[in-house]
Parts: sequence; structure tokens; C-alpha cells
Amino acid sequence: MPESKSPLSGVTVIDLGQIYQGPYATFLMAQAGADVIKVEPLHGEPLRRSDLRGEGPSFPLGFLNSNKRGVTLNLKSEEGRGLLQRLVARADVLLENFAPGTMERLGVGAEKLMTANPRLIYASGSGFGLSGPDRDRRALDVTVQASSGVMSITGAEGGPPMRSGPALADFLGGVHLYSGVVTALYERERSGRGRLVEVAMQEAVYPTLLSDLGLMYRGGGVQLPRRGNHHGAVAPYNVYPTRDGHIALLCISDEHWLRLLQAMDREDLRDDARFASPVTRTENVEEVDAVVEAWTRELTRDEVCKLTELHRVPSAPVRDLAEVTSDPHMHERGMLHRIDHPELGEVVLPGSPIRIHETSIPELVPSPSLGQHNDELYGTWPGLSEEEIAGLRERGVI
Amino acid sequence: MPESKSPLSGVTVIDLGQIYQGPYATFLMAQAGADVIKVEPLHGEPLRRSDLRGEGPSFPLGFLNSNKRGVTLNLKSEEGRGLLQRLVARADVLLENFAPGTMERLGVGAEKLMTANPRLIYASGSGFGLSGPDRDRRALDVTVQASSGVMSITGAEGGPPMRSGPALADFLGGVHLYSGVVTALYERERSGRGRLVEVAMQEAVYPTLLSDLGLMYRGGGVQLPRRGNHHGAVAPYNVYPTRDGHIALLCISDEHWLRLLQAMDREDLRDDARFASPVTRTENVEEVDAVVEAWTRELTRDEVCKLTELHRVPSAPVRDLAEVTSDPHMHERGMLHRIDHPELGEVVLPGSPIRIHETSIPELVPSPSLGQHNDELYGTWPGLSEEEIAGLRERGVI
Repeated sequence: MPESKSPLSGVTVIDLGQIYQGPYATFLMAQAGADVIKVEPLHGEPLRRSDLRGEGPSFPLGFLNSNKRGVTLNLKSEEGRGLLQRLVARADVLLENFAPGTMERLGVGAEKLMTANPRLIYASGSGFGLSGPDRDRRALDVTVQASSGVMSITGAEGGPPMRSGPALADFLGGVHLYSGVVTALYERERSGRGRLVEVAMQEAVYPTLLSDLGLMYRGGGVQLPRRGNHHGAVAPYNVYPTRDGHIALLCISDEHWLRLLQAMDREDLRDDARFASPVTRTENVEEVDAVVEAWTRELTRDEVCKLTELHRVPSAPVRDLAEVTSDPHMHERGMLHRIDHPELGEVVLPGSPIRIHETSIPELVPSPSLGQHNDELYGTWPGLSEEEIAGLRERGVI
Repeated sequence: MPESKSPLSGVTVIDLGQIYQGPYATFLMAQAGADVIKVEPLHGEPLRRSDLRGEGPSFPLGFLNSNKRGVTLNLKSEEGRGLLQRLVARADVLLENFAPGTMERLGVGAEKLMTANPRLIYASGSGFGLSGPDRDRRALDVTVQASSGVMSITGAEGGPPMRSGPALADFLGGVHLYSGVVTALYERERSGRGRLVEVAMQEAVYPTLLSDLGLMYRGGGVQLPRRGNHHGAVAPYNVYPTRDGHIALLCISDEHWLRLLQAMDREDLRDDARFASPVTRTENVEEVDAVVEAWTRELTRDEVCKLTELHRVPSAPVRDLAEVTSDPHMHERGMLHRIDHPELGEVVLPGSPIRIHETSIPELVPSPSLGQHNDELYGTWPGLSEEEIAGLRERGVI
């Protein structure tokens, strides 16, 4: 998979990642040209062996593991751990997102591996990090959304705290972990040494709270109640229904509001004291919404979009997933690819959001089947014979 | 600010970033030891000059600009652009998140700057990227949430599409941009050349949709309706009210469910056919929720947490922002710092979620006031005299 002119060509990654956080970090590495070896237990990583309803192959697995090579390895066997150490001896990066302490318990912890290979970058993704009183609390995207404060600021006015639909804790964790590994690769060019890199999902999420943290400080330490699609200090700022969908629309400045009045053909409201400033519009947010909604309800989503664009009022159509996956813009830019995946059939899969001009982008290669590259990898890298590989299989090592 | 042993020590960054996306990317650089020069127009970047209610200093500005030096520079003056080019001649990175084409229109676009300094990494953050039909669509966190599909999968059953509270588009954009810059720094060690790096918020958000994309493919291309805090294929999976707050709780496996029955002292339901498997529990999700809620309602949040932890059922308290900012775990780990900020007073500010062991972490230095380092920077780097600096001030260049 490595491309000669890709930014991370020549970098070899042992990828013990599972589910979302770890595999997204190594997905970004593979897309930047690293040689990523996805190492799975003999029954596959959790995402492969269970898609929760137990039907057919897992789309998320296919989504996150393009351009990786796949091997199996039983880390619960002595021989398997020995094989891991042989792989690690020649690797630049080992990445895992097991519960903290798992690798130590298996006898292949960071310290041991980095002593054997001082240039190794050992990357650990977890919910709460490798230290501190909460280290061993179990973490999933949804529980991190709860404990990190994300749920407390999402949801309708008067309603319960709500989950954000996107898996933001996993992915913010994953991309920060990628960042940490590449930062350590850069540092290694000077120091000659690998580093232990760690990212906690809860910490990766924290910065995203800053608007609400600011409003809390302004309120003397008291958090604003949940406010659905409202902003709290800007109006209009909402999601409005149209004849055939929804549109998000907001006016940050008075100029936006005056232009919106033009778009709505409601310039009779120009001098209305209720709508004269952001402060009075926020105080009269229900009347503001009523005026805007009376207009949007009569039009289609695209008609509203056309008018707000013409009058330069910040807005966007609320698009569904089918629209997004077939977005001509992202397809034209090469971010999205429609491919025929051997296990999933025809699906749209993404490339990397990180775009570095004048470096080569690998062609998208579908995710490996379980153990697809066992013969190829074990035959060339530790250089085992066919008989040795057959023996490993028989003994349940690979 | 650079520390001798920080991973990015020796890297100089000209930071034209504004609002959230750009400044978060350079925040991560500053926390990794780069010398980040925040360059603002004479009236300050948008976040400084307007916090939307026009009262006092901006908490988000203070949050995102720790450990940067701050200067002013008028890019609309010929002389100002000349000064920028002198700064760029010695910089490793220039980062901006203006609307695409802005820098070209000013006559200081990527091509020109990179021709003058071929080692320069030019980083551009935007909503939709530097190419494609949607390039010039205006983007804010909330409009990207609408157009990227995030809103379509967030919100209550039967309710309107909903914004996620956290500024996830801005921050996913920002950390991918950091990633791109560091990847290009690493590549430069081999190629000797800088690169144009770009990240589009919409593309940085796309991977977070994968669970729902998977459910859509499974449904033959039809997106599931919004489902609030429910999962759609796992039950229980919800946010439950307790006597004094809420708890997120889920049972991925049958084992979790059996352990939850123990925790609730409801082992009478062990053999209830309605609850026998993930499939039947999902079909009977209302009854499942009723059983769980009858239990959580009678207890405090912490009592429920203690019992679910004891019985190893995945769960987490829904915490509010005051709890999160005073979280003993994140303070002990050095992620959160309580500091006395010269403009904001006593606030909690974060360090970097990227943790690289055995490299030094800079002490947190509060964000600069507008133009705080004008004399220091312009006096030493382009090496201007006091008179020259005074002249620039008089002519409205800095």
C-alpha cells in the first residue's frame, strides 16, 4: 500500500486498534501512505464479529480499514506475543485502544516494547487516559458524551440531556491520536527516540464545549438551560421547517437581519423596536421565529436556500445521509468514493479529510478480510516458511 | 514560549486564524512548543472584537490562544502585506481560515508566499475546501452541522433535526488541520519542501456519521428516523432520570442485561421472553425503559452509578459544565488548569489533549492582549528600530 511520495511512506504501523477510535487514527495513517498492519484476534476485532444485530458484514469495519493489510494474531498465546515482538522490532508505530493496563497484563506493555525498540512510538487511545482516578472507568462514545458535558448542552428546551448523533468522542479521540503519533514521528527525527503518546476521549472532547463554557462564566458560573437549536445570544438562530424539509438560518449581525427582511419581503419590520438589535431580537425570539417560519413554511427548502444565498444570509439546508453520501462536491473533490466492496457491495467510502497538495494519495483499497494477509506478511517480514506458518495456524497462534 | 525539549520547539507559526477552527489548530501547535505568532487586524480578530453581546472580554478567545504571542498587522495596507512577507520568509508555517480566495485577493496567496519561501507550509481551513462547486459557500459550525448530515441524526423521536451542542465541526476541522500541518512538517524532513495543506470542516465531520451510515445501508438505503437517546439496535440504551439528575446506561450484550437485573434486584425478569435477546429487547424498548426507569427514579445519580459500576454495566453520570470544569481527574492529569487570567479573571483553561511522554509541556501562558508583542516581535525579527515601529503605528500598519 505505501506510495513512494506519500507523506508517511516508509512508516510501518502495527495496528491493534478496535471499534472506532484506534482504527480511525490508523485509517488516517494508511491514507497518508503508511504501511498499516491491522492485527486482529483469531475471531476478529469486536466490530467485525458483532455488528450488534449479528447480520452480515460490518459497514463501519469496511469504512475505517481501507488501505490496511490484515493479519490475525493470538495475543493470549505465548507464541503469539513472541511474534508480536518480532513485528514490533521493525515497526515505527504500535497503536492500541484497549482498556488501560491490558497490554501490560499480557506482558507486552509500552515499556517492554519500547525498551526492545527505542525508536518505537507507542500510541494509546482510551476514554480517560493512562493516569488519574478515573483511568479504569469503562468508556464508550455515549458514556463519554454523558460524562464530558456534551449531553448537558444538547437537546430541546425543557427536555432531557441528549446524545449527539455523530460519534464525536470516538473520532475526536482518533484524530487527536493520529496527531500525537505524527508529532512524535517529527520529534523522533531530532531526538532519535520513540515516545509514549496517549489521548483520552474525554479530554479530546473538552475544547468543543467552549461556547457554552463562555456563557456559563458570563452567567456567574451558572450554566444556561438547554436551548435546542437556539443560540441564547443571537436571533434568529434556529432550524426552520419548509414545505419539504428544514433549513438552518441565523443572523449574527444587524446587517444579516436587514438582508433577511429583504429576502422575506418584510421590510415593513425594519424599524420594529422588537427586532432592532441582537439583544431585543433575543428577548423576542418567539416573535422572530414566528416571522421567519411564516415565510419558510410556504417555500421549498431549495427556494429558501436560493433566496438566503442571494441576500447573503448565513444558512444551510438540513441534508439527510443519502444526500450527503451522494454530494457532488465531495465526490468531485475526491473525498468520497463509490466502490464495489468485496464484502459490502456497492458503498460510498471516504478518503482522508487531511489534504496535502503535491503528495500522492493512495488509491482506495477495500478493507481486508480477516487474516487476508497472513501468508504475505508472516512470509516476508519475520520471514517464516510455509511450514512454519502452517504450524502457527494449527496451534491457533494466527 | 518555545521549550527546548517540546516536540515542535524551533517551529515558527504565523497564525492568521480566527474564531475557532484556525486558532484551535495553532493552539495545539503552541502547546506542543511551537512559537506561534497570532496576527490580528488592528481592531482584533472577530472573536476579540465581538462576543455577540458586546460585554467584556471573550472567554473563547482566552481559551484558544494560550501560549501564543500577539501582534497586530493591517493586511489591507501595502506596507502591512510587505511586513507579512518579511515574517513569512522566516516562518515554517502560515495558517489561515479566511474564506477561500481571500489571501489571493490580498496579493499574499499560497503560491506567492510558497514561491518566496519553498519550505513554508501553508495551511488553509475552510468549510468546504479550496476546490469544488461548494467552495465559496459560507460556513459556520451550525451551517456545517446542517449540510453535513449531523443534524439529521440528532434530536428526539418525531422531533425536528437538532444541533449538537459542542462546536464539533469547528474542532474536528481544527484538529485535522493541526494533523495536516504536522504531517507536512514530517514530510518536509525528507523532501525539503513545504506543502499546501487544506482541511474542509464538512469532510472532517463526515467520518463521525458512520454508525448511522451503516444502519442506512442495512435498511436498503433508507435512513432510520431520529431516535433521541435510543440506539436503534441495542436496548436498554438511553438517558434515564434519577432523583437528582440523569444517567446514561446501556447493555450491549445479554451479559450486561443479566448483570443489570442483578443490580436492580429484578432477577424475576431473567426468563421474560420480552427481554431475552438484543432483538426482543429492541422490539420491546418501551417496556425495557419502563423497568429501568422505575429503578433509577428512586435513587440518586451517584447511587445508580455505584450499583452499575459494581455490576459492570456500561453507564455514566450525565455531568453538567460546572462538574466537568472542576473534574478532579482532569485537573490531576494536568489537562485542566485553574488560572487567574489578566482579562478574564479566575477561569479554568485546558492544555492539549495530545500527550507525549518524556517531552516537556509548556507552562500555560494566558492569551495575549491585542498587539501585546508588537514591540518585541517587530523589534527583533524583522529587526525594526523604535522609530520604524512608531512609524508603522502612526500609519495604521500595526
